[in-house]
Amino acid sequence: MADYFIGVDLGGTNVVTAILDQTGRLIDKISQPTQAEQGPQSLVERTSRSAESLIEKHSVSRSQLKAMGIGSPGPLSFAEGRIIASPNLPGFEQFPLRAEYSRRLQIPAVLDNDANVACWGEFWLGAGEDVTDMVLFTLGTGIGGGIVCQGELVHGSEDNAAELGHMIIVPDGRRCNCGQHGCLEAYASANQTANRAREALEQGRSSSLQAVWKNNGQVSSKDVFYHAQGGDALALEIVDGTAKALAQASINMRHITEPQKVVLTGGMIKAGDFLLHKVQRFFDEMIWTLKKESLEICLATLGGDAGCIGAAGLAFHVFQKQELPPVGT
Amino acid sequence: MADYFIGVDLGGTNVVTAILDQTGRLIDKISQPTQAEQGPQSLVERTSRSAESLIEKHSVSRSQLKAMGIGSPGPLSFAEGRIIASPNLPGFEQFPLRAEYSRRLQIPAVLDNDANVACWGEFWLGAGEDVTDMVLFTLGTGIGGGIVCQGELVHGSEDNAAELGHMIIVPDGRRCNCGQHGCLEAYASANQTANRAREALEQGRSSSLQAVWKNNGQVSSKDVFYHAQGGDALALEIVDGTAKALAQASINMRHITEPQKVVLTGGMIKAGDFLLHKVQRFFDEMIWTLKKESLEICLATLGGDAGCIGAAGLAFHVFQKQELPPVGT
Repeated sequence: MADYFIGVDLGGTNVVTAILDQTGRLIDKISQPTQAEQGPQSLVERTSRSAESLIEKHSVSRSQLKAMGIGSPGPLSFAEGRIIASPNLPGFEQFPLRAEYSRRLQIPAVLDNDANVACWGEFWLGAGEDVTDMVLFTLGTGIGGGIVCQGELVHGSEDNAAELGHMIIVPDGRRCNCGQHGCLEAYASANQTANRAREALEQGRSSSLQAVWKNNGQVSSKDVFYHAQGGDALALEIVDGTAKALAQASINMRHITEPQKVVLTGGMIKAGDFLLHKVQRFFDEMIWTLKKESLEICLATLGGDAGCIGAAGLAFHVFQKQELPPVGT
Repeated sequence: MADYFIGVDLGGTNVVTAILDQTGRLIDKISQPTQAEQGPQSLVERTSRSAESLIEKHSVSRSQLKAMGIGSPGPLSFAEGRIIASPNLPGFEQFPLRAEYSRRLQIPAVLDNDANVACWGEFWLGAGEDVTDMVLFTLGTGIGGGIVCQGELVHGSEDNAAELGHMIIVPDGRRCNCGQHGCLEAYASANQTANRAREALEQGRSSSLQAVWKNNGQVSSKDVFYHAQGGDALALEIVDGTAKALAQASINMRHITEPQKVVLTGGMIKAGDFLLHKVQRFFDEMIWTLKKESLEICLATLGGDAGCIGAAGLAFHVFQKQELPPVGT
């Protein structure tokens, strides 16, 4: 008889509730607007109803339903199952998300941050399913990360490990929103890739992007990649800057936790192999020559489902380790 | 009745054999020349005799002696208990160090690299004894490292994790012996601290170090720290470069594995608080402002004993986990 797990992937815009079995089969999912302005209690109620409708629809008995996992923007306290602060979910500060879900659905729950659950999803069933050690970079507005060492997520001493976007790669470099200078995120996020292009255009650099900028009043990372693929020199230079920063960060992670795979995910991987091959080329050029490194850099394969799959998968993993917290806590 | 553990710390010049009990009490130790030129078999025989003399001298019965740990320069295969390559121990390549010791002494053995066992020693009984997550930087000729996450050493997928000296901190920076550019080691090791000073002196920079350089034909990192403490502007600039590089690496590790402590060890920590306070100051200046970070940067406390203590401690740890390999393997 199969075991079943619920996964909730909470985002600023949408929240996805899914049901999986222990083989990782995604049986069904429901996506709905987060409507954060209605507060955390409303969110828990609406998504718990979604979970209950999935349980009923697929005739899953209570005894088969073992646990649920929740992925949420952070920072969080995993030990307490609580949101600490949440710039993208105003009003959710200090909310005991795990206990509220667990009490509502009467199953044990685990809480982890959004990048970690996406990392776990890719590790369990996606690009990293064949390795024991992997690193995930999420390339979006900012850069998040996840680290798996020997089959376990690295959480750190205060649950804020794997903030990979804030690795300083250039001393006294570009200012980051976090207050540091020279962060990976200040070069290689989608926003900063676009910003570096815009800054060059403002300096009057010749480029096919000038027309885009004049017409739209802005330039997106998508524009930059499109024009780079079209052969525009400035756009290529900007994309190379992004790829080189990601290669440096990948080399650093190879030397620090020594993953077999670095997985790239997030909006910017729509650029696909064009970006991936550049990152791999810089990696090969810049990595040490002491020994041959076999690190594989690759794209995520689960797309937007990584979060809900990873959340359910993490619940399954903690269930297997028999480390689930009691129901209602 | 106490359990006892043997620790062997194998260095290029000397090898230390120690006996500890499970509380971490260092009962006795013997240091002897490595004499690598006599080959690995001779080394195992000579140090096994040292271990046997310690066992006899302190009347430890065979049933009380549970395991031994060996720290060796790498790269190693921990799974196979074998030295893979060993620039500092010619002739030791592919030698099954763990099996040879285990067969000779008839106790289970574990093998790990020198930086990892030093890290484990400091974590078990030294500067890191009160934390769950720590990072060690060994500041010597090169820079090595060790990482403990939630009470376990991070070994990586191929046993080469924690090569912290080869984190790239400056894109296209100083060439490192490893073939990369801009490694932490290329700025902040004792050798490279001295080299950066010498390069500045060659450029004719005014400094009280010029006289040292003329008289001795060379400048050591010790000279650089001594003259910096005396107020020499160039020496201060060089030391600041070292401290800033270590601060950047510490910030990166805080964001990656989130240790509570970063511990500095190796020859260069003879500079003591003078170095430590500079690293802490740069850390405080450069770290993000998103939240207050409580990372403590501190000096190692076990000195040269960290290796043999850590090797024995690792044997104790693996014994406790009941994961020791069979005798003779």
